[in-house]
Amino acid sequence: MLPLSGRRNSQWDRSPSSARTPLRHGRAHSHLRMGARCSRAQHPIFALQSQRASDAHLPAADAWRSTEPDSRMRLRTACCKCFRFQSTSAICDFIFLSLIWCFWTAMLPVVVVHGGAGHIPKERAELATIGVKEAARTGYVILEKGGSAMDAVVEAVAVMENNPRFNAGRGSVLNVKGEVEMDAMVMDGRNLASGAVSAVRRIANPVYLARLVMEKTKHLCLTAEGASKFARSMGVPEVLEESLITDYAKMRWKKNLEPDANPVECQMGKMGTVGAVAVDKDGNIACATSTGGMINKMEGRVGDTPCVGCGGYADNNIGAVSPTGHGEAIMKVTLSRLILFHMEQGKTAEEASDLALTYMKERVDGLGGVVVVDPKGTWTARFSSLQMVWAAAQQGELHYGVYRDENVVEPVQENI
Amino acid sequence: MLPLSGRRNSQWDRSPSSARTPLRHGRAHSHLRMGARCSRAQHPIFALQSQRASDAHLPAADAWRSTEPDSRMRLRTACCKCFRFQSTSAICDFIFLSLIWCFWTAMLPVVVVHGGAGHIPKERAELATIGVKEAARTGYVILEKGGSAMDAVVEAVAVMENNPRFNAGRGSVLNVKGEVEMDAMVMDGRNLASGAVSAVRRIANPVYLARLVMEKTKHLCLTAEGASKFARSMGVPEVLEESLITDYAKMRWKKNLEPDANPVECQMGKMGTVGAVAVDKDGNIACATSTGGMINKMEGRVGDTPCVGCGGYADNNIGAVSPTGHGEAIMKVTLSRLILFHMEQGKTAEEASDLALTYMKERVDGLGGVVVVDPKGTWTARFSSLQMVWAAAQQGELHYGVYRDENVVEPVQENI
Repeated sequence: MLPLSGRRNSQWDRSPSSARTPLRHGRAHSHLRMGARCSRAQHPIFALQSQRASDAHLPAADAWRSTEPDSRMRLRTACCKCFRFQSTSAICDFIFLSLIWCFWTAMLPVVVVHGGAGHIPKERAELATIGVKEAARTGYVILEKGGSAMDAVVEAVAVMENNPRFNAGRGSVLNVKGEVEMDAMVMDGRNLASGAVSAVRRIANPVYLARLVMEKTKHLCLTAEGASKFARSMGVPEVLEESLITDYAKMRWKKNLEPDANPVECQMGKMGTVGAVAVDKDGNIACATSTGGMINKMEGRVGDTPCVGCGGYADNNIGAVSPTGHGEAIMKVTLSRLILFHMEQGKTAEEASDLALTYMKERVDGLGGVVVVDPKGTWTARFSSLQMVWAAAQQGELHYGVYRDENVVEPVQENI
Repeated sequence: MLPLSGRRNSQWDRSPSSARTPLRHGRAHSHLRMGARCSRAQHPIFALQSQRASDAHLPAADAWRSTEPDSRMRLRTACCKCFRFQSTSAICDFIFLSLIWCFWTAMLPVVVVHGGAGHIPKERAELATIGVKEAARTGYVILEKGGSAMDAVVEAVAVMENNPRFNAGRGSVLNVKGEVEMDAMVMDGRNLASGAVSAVRRIANPVYLARLVMEKTKHLCLTAEGASKFARSMGVPEVLEESLITDYAKMRWKKNLEPDANPVECQMGKMGTVGAVAVDKDGNIACATSTGGMINKMEGRVGDTPCVGCGGYADNNIGAVSPTGHGEAIMKVTLSRLILFHMEQGKTAEEASDLALTYMKERVDGLGGVVVVDPKGTWTARFSSLQMVWAAAQQGELHYGVYRDENVVEPVQENI
């Protein structure tokens, strides 16, 4: 598969320092540049990483942690040898591991959010940008205070659900009957635990309910009236449906019911699904996604969002993805899991996203976008649609954009 | 990842002729054994296969078909050269391509079905075996008459839905309220089209409704009351809930509500999800899965079945999977897509199934089973649970089994 023509070099999709990319393979030794470096393929730690990561879904850090002490000693010694620096003392061992840990965690924590992909009128894009910045800042503050990735993504998504500019929670698009039916999911990369709700009504924050499904039931997904009953049993307040419906959503619904409505234009102007991915200071990864779905959808339509592997996926060993776009196309190619499979095969988050988005476009004619993180904190926001509203917070900086090549950077503090 | 200990060689999982396995890489030239064969890796057709299959999700046949005429000529000439047989005449070209086609399609059509994995009492296993044989035979008759893979899997699953011995359609397990809520999905490997229903009630054959969602709507999944309304609009008759509930299901429901019910024993004795995968004479692939879910599940619980990539996946370029077992675990690892990803990386259907089932057991402590086909008609039925009821029909033979190492073979005709 080829990347989207002209996109790889033109679209912003990475945290600012280009030095981050080589860390994928070169980070463990970047603190020892005074010595001649052994070839990456030959070096024992990379051989170990490569073998263990591909065989057992383990990235380098886990490969190192899960290695037996004897093997660690041999590896360390081998590494030292290749830098013409021989020592087996406990102090050197400590320093060596500490340096690896410091470089490993330098880019953590990180949170990346999106507020939907599609064709967004300029005035709405500006308001949505303010919204995603607020969401990313909310998640980042939680992470900086030592909160978990799960806390960060859930709160970031809840901020967007509460913002009527987004198609999730308040502001959701209406189904063909003029009602609000929402989907949401969360996934915890530590143990692949997940929770989701589909076609749920009269809930202000479906993402909270999805988290409760994960934490309080033995199931992964509850739907429709069953989900509402569970919400009641958990004391989640039911809200009036009118409180979720905005004038804009009503206007679009009515317009799209007109006999001469254009089915293509029908989906324009809506903000898509909202979502977030994050890695916390402990290296734990999580994702969350929430949506009101497709404008004028059939009653009971379930999109990609509550479907594990389609509307999101998180695995501490690989990374996390939250997508947005044409839900049915995303489901057909299991977009989130597809991106992570490419990353398991050695692609960067950016390359994997481009491969998967290109495949989705070519195979099922679907457009969309994704935010992605890997365990090291490398992140990307890629889209094959015209626009995607996104924001990311890392190392005290807030990045955001809507259009191709757009990456505005400012200190996170400005927004606090 | 390692295969399940002791399973790879002990469990039956492939059509009888061991000669089938090498076809993965050696088939295109197996008719020309009179000459010295070039090395597989060096041979141009395999280089082409390898490059195209990995780059663009294309198997060898598609790679050959999609190759430009000039390249085909060069390839054919190169193949002829390496067999010390030079000719560029149209007749040789025709014979060469015909032989490839003959060998390619020799194992088609094929259908493989399962009637659930788990711990099944002997008397129920025997009745279920009769059921899966009937389902496989039904699918095979359709395929032999030139029917599509989609027709075959849908009708095979419908046979099991109508059989009260299976946990799908009539015979579904009951939720905690003593009601029947069913999930089903179908997927067409030609274009990745899919249809699903979740938590649907009072429908005799949810698999038919899932197919209607695929064919008659722009959506992939409808849930609960929305799915029922769609069924009514399509003229699908609503049945009395009592007609779907068997005495056995009622007995298990009541037993599991008792205060001293054992949650592990609770799931025993149920027959799991039913499913089917098939490749038709044209090489098209499809899958279908249907289930009543988990015994005494919460109202509105949705399992893996209607979730694309979890409860099934079909892609003409890779193969098809229908799983059964612990739905929540299947979702966490996106079992169906995971198996097909392994197959894309060059694993056989059997190896890929073992890798994925082992991963599911180790990572999320989940047991289950799968039936899998690839585009050449190679099939497998693998399980990490104690038992799985399965049957397969290919080349006039019917295979079936329940326990490890069991593979009974008889002519399909005996059953017609």
